[in-house]
This record gives sequence, C-alpha cells and structure tokens, in this order.
Amino acid sequence: MTTVLPSALLTARESVDPVLRRAVAQLDPDTRRVCEYHFGWRGADGSPEGGGGKALRPAMVLLSAQSARPPGPPDQAVAAAAAVELVHNFSLLHDDVMDGDTSRRHRATAWTVFGRPAALLAGDALLSLATEVLLNSTSPHAAAAARSLSATTRVLIAGQAADLDFEHRHDVTLDECLRMAHDKTAALLACAASIGALSAGAPQDAVFGLHTFGTELGMAFQLVDDLLGLWGDPEVTGKPVLSDLRARKKTVPVVHALNSGTTAGERLRELYARPEPLTEQQLREAAEMVQRAGSADWTRRECQRRLTAADAHLPRGPQDVTEALTELATFIVRRKL
Amino acid sequence: MTTVLPSALLTARESVDPVLRRAVAQLDPDTRRVCEYHFGWRGADGSPEGGGGKALRPAMVLLSAQSARPPGPPDQAVAAAAAVELVHNFSLLHDDVMDGDTSRRHRATAWTVFGRPAALLAGDALLSLATEVLLNSTSPHAAAAARSLSATTRVLIAGQAADLDFEHRHDVTLDECLRMAHDKTAALLACAASIGALSAGAPQDAVFGLHTFGTELGMAFQLVDDLLGLWGDPEVTGKPVLSDLRARKKTVPVVHALNSGTTAGERLRELYARPEPLTEQQLREAAEMVQRAGSADWTRRECQRRLTAADAHLPRGPQDVTEALTELATFIVRRKL
Repeated sequence: MTTVLPSALLTARESVDPVLRRAVAQLDPDTRRVCEYHFGWRGADGSPEGGGGKALRPAMVLLSAQSARPPGPPDQAVAAAAAVELVHNFSLLHDDVMDGDTSRRHRATAWTVFGRPAALLAGDALLSLATEVLLNSTSPHAAAAARSLSATTRVLIAGQAADLDFEHRHDVTLDECLRMAHDKTAALLACAASIGALSAGAPQDAVFGLHTFGTELGMAFQLVDDLLGLWGDPEVTGKPVLSDLRARKKTVPVVHALNSGTTAGERLRELYARPEPLTEQQLREAAEMVQRAGSADWTRRECQRRLTAADAHLPRGPQDVTEALTELATFIVRRKL
Repeated sequence: MTTVLPSALLTARESVDPVLRRAVAQLDPDTRRVCEYHFGWRGADGSPEGGGGKALRPAMVLLSAQSARPPGPPDQAVAAAAAVELVHNFSLLHDDVMDGDTSRRHRATAWTVFGRPAALLAGDALLSLATEVLLNSTSPHAAAAARSLSATTRVLIAGQAADLDFEHRHDVTLDECLRMAHDKTAALLACAASIGALSAGAPQDAVFGLHTFGTELGMAFQLVDDLLGLWGDPEVTGKPVLSDLRARKKTVPVVHALNSGTTAGERLRELYARPEPLTEQQLREAAEMVQRAGSADWTRRECQRRLTAADAHLPRGPQDVTEALTELATFIVRRKL
C-alpha cells in the first residue's frame, strides 16, 4: 500500500522531533535508552534508526494553533504538540506492559527488550516530561494547556482501567464500550485538536469547537481501528488479523454484536465464554458472527456519522488550515477498511 | 515507642487531606479505589479506614510557604503540598510494583491486592493529578512550581533506574550510591522544602537556600533509613531487621563497606556474590561486617554532617517557622537509630 502522507504530518515531525529528542536527552541514560528505542530513534543495541511515529497528534496540535487568530508563537504550539506526543507515548509504553503486548509498529515492545520495570519508568518519564515541555513555553496560556493535558491523562487512565475491567466481564454494554473508546482514544485527539488554539489564547467557543471536532474524529478513528482489528491487513495494522478476537477484546463491533439479541450474537457470546484458546476456525467464525449480527455495518455507519459530526465542527478559520485539517482527518480514518 | 508528632504534621494532614481526597475522587471508580486503599483511607474491601501517611512532605511545603515574606495565600501552599504528596505516592506505588515489595506501612502493597496493572494505573493517575492540583491554584507562580515538581519527578525516576541497575552490578561506587540516595529521596524533600516559597513568589536566593536545606535533610533521612534497614526495629520501619541485606540492597553503608578495602568489606562482598539466599546467620554476619568495616560509623557521621549543613541553610524567616522546621527536621531523622 502506498499512501501520500499529508504534508502537515511531515511538517509536524520536523518541528516536533527536535523538541522530543531534547526532552528525552534530559533523562538518565538507562531511561533515555528505553525512550529512544520506543520512539524508533534507536535500536535495542543503541544504534541510530530512522523510525518514529506518524505524528498525527502533533500535526493536529500545530493546525489547531494555526486556526487561531492570531495564531500563537510557533514555539508554543510546538511545545504543546511535543507534550501531547509525550503523553501519547507514555500511554503506549504502559499499556503494552499491562496488556502484555509484544509488538508495536512492527517492532518488539520496549518491555520485551528492556524489561517491565524499565518500560514502566520510561512511561513515567515521558508523562513527567510532557508537563516540563509544556510549561517551559513562555505562553501565558501554558498553564491552562497543561491543565487540559493533565485532565486528559486522567481520562486516558480511566479508559485503560475500563479496558482492563472489560477483560473479566461478560456484561459490557455498548454505552460502556463507546465510553471506553472515547476515553482511550478520542479524549487525547480532542485535546490535540484544541490545545494548540488554547495555547494561542483563542476564544473559548473556538477551543470547544475544536475539542468536539477532535472527539468525533477520535471516535471515528477508534471505530476504524476496531474494524481493522477484525479484518484488517497485518501489513497495515502491524498485528495479525483476528488478533482482537484471539485476545477476546471487547471492541465496539464485538460488544455491539454481543448485545444485538441475534442468533449470531449468541453464538459469539458462546465462543467468547470458552475457557480454552479459540482455534483459527473458531476465530474466523467469531468474525463471521460479528458480520452477521449486523455489527460491522453498524460500526461503519457510526464511523461515518462521527465523521460528519467532526466535519460540522471544523474551525471556520483560514481556508488553508481548514483544508489541512480535513486532509489530516481523512488520512486518519481512510486506512484500509 | 511513643513519639510526640510535631504539630506541623497534624496541621498539614488536616489541610492537605481534603485536597488529596477531592483530587482522587475525580478518578474513575477502579483507579480511585486503588488510590484510596494506598493512602490508607479505605481497606481492600472499600470500607473506610482512618489511616494515612505522616504528611512529612506536605508539612515541609506549608512551612516553606510560611517562611516567605509575605507568605503566599494558604490555598496555594496547600495545593503545592498536595501535589508533592501525590508525586511521592506515585513513586511509592510504582516502586512497589517494580521492586516486588509486598508490604508498606504495615499493610499489603496495592499491587498485591489489586494486581500490577491497577497499581500501575493508580500511580499514573497520582502523577497526573499532581499537575492538575498544582495548576488549579490561582498563583502566578504555579507554573514555576509545576516545572520544579516535574523536573524533580525526572530525578526520582533516575534514582529508581539507578536502584534497579545496582541490583545487577557488583561495582557500584560510593559516589554512585550517594547520587542514588539523592535522586530517590533527597530530591523530593528539596522540592518540598522549596516549592512553598517558590509558589509564594519568594526571592530566588531564599528558594535556593530552602532547596539546599531540603537536600541535606533528605540525605540525612536516607542515611538513617539505610541504617534502620540494617539494624532497625521492625515496629518502627515496618520491615524485618536485615531486610535490606536479605534483598542484597546496595545501600550507602553496604556500598561504603564493599569499597572500604577492609577484610570485613571483602567478606561482605563474598556474601553478596552468593547465588543462593543468605541464611539468618549469614545475614547477621553481613551486618557485622558492615559494622567492622567502619561503615556504620561513617554513615552516622555523614548523617550528622548533612544535618549540620541543613541547619546552616534554615531560612532566617519568622522565628516560629524556623523553629517548626527544626522540630520537623529533628523528627524526620530522630527515628530509632
């Protein structure tokens, strides 16, 4: 698959990467090594690598700042973008430890390479650096931005707590599941979409509008991710097809099916309740049941509805910023569906 | 043992507890439950308990604020005190997971009750709440205080990383060990001693003086703790005597002995290098070797030297504040030695 990356992503990576690297360079050598590996800047042996994330959230922050009139000073927007990326990576490091996930972005997860304690400390360090980076900016609105980011972190934690709780429950409702999707994914995208404008001192209604745009886009993003977790291409997602079913994750399409009151939903419930690991055939059957319960279609429609809602909250700012936000939003959800 | 608690501790607990409880109440129910257990406010089953920490650090923050002329508004000092206590407890929760420690303050550690992932999330939540609490204050100096606390968190993390690293090393130098003691313990006490004044907008030299006072006191505190870990009364420390030797911790007196070039030091090195667990007799012998190497005496002298240095940096502020700080400092290090 070849995809043309939106230019906003390239710009974001170029401006945010140096700030991230400087922040991580402040850490003690052991913790720094883990973070540099996690970010894809270095291999497990410390040799330089050209990797790195896609900078979706930093790009969102920078466009958010540019949508404000006047936009804030660029270095403040970059600080906010780096802070959001640090929080995102804090959550990835810790989630991988908690979930026992062994690969991410086609590489071994940090805890498998450096051990759980080191990965835990690296996550702690990134969370702490996020505050430092944000408050090192000279913006009079930096404190408000840091408050927003910390409140968002609390929501991220609630989402991960719910995710862990769901593992042991058979009665998760669709509402609970959608709330979890909001908390784990949409909340940080909403923060990314609004914190740039917030740091630039934009009026409250503009900040709120961007926050809603980010929330709706984030929900769509998570729904796409859930669909990919069932039928996606491992080349795209970096995880094997059916992996979410194998782990019996309670994703939105699965929980929708379980609560559908259909025969297919009941069959899925039976499969999910089995104590032993599911066979490949059972996994394929489970995916088929999600389909037959109408839950894949429902999830696709819900995704579309969220995208329309996001669109309605695009900032009415400078034309080029709105276009860039639209391009970025499209890129985020137009992964192989 | 009966000890009269300095009144500053009681005052601090009374004013900071409500802020801590309100902050923790913002969390999702699962994470909140873990935090409330960890703080000693509730039992494992959720029933109320009257426990709680000694509020050493919050008391230090409040006295720090009172030493400034004019002192900042009390609610700002209380916010800073709560934030420091949140960071302290974040580090306890995560350290217990990493170190596999099963008891703290005479109770089962949170991870043994709720599982590692829940304890990890609870720690994350407290770290994030610290920033929120601090930045919710209206102080124009809140951002500077949050920067100081975040930078301190980075040092705490470095200390824990060093502690983990030392477990696998046989060549830890005394300097490295003292640096670790500084990073793990003294750095947060230095922050506690200075952040109140910082939040009140005190002049830089006053903030620096308090920071040095806290650093020296924190070093003395850690050295006392190290001595207690060897010969202390379990009633006082909550851990069995010789526990640090049993875990082959590289504490200051131990590392001093290992590097002493004495016969006793060599014998200790032999014992520490054994693959199998040490017998009770070997543990007593190890403690005896630390003694014979002169390392217990050295540690006591070093402790005294740090206390004298702390004393020299007591703020020359209002008499009652200086007296209360002295009383608190004395309480901190006058545990059964």
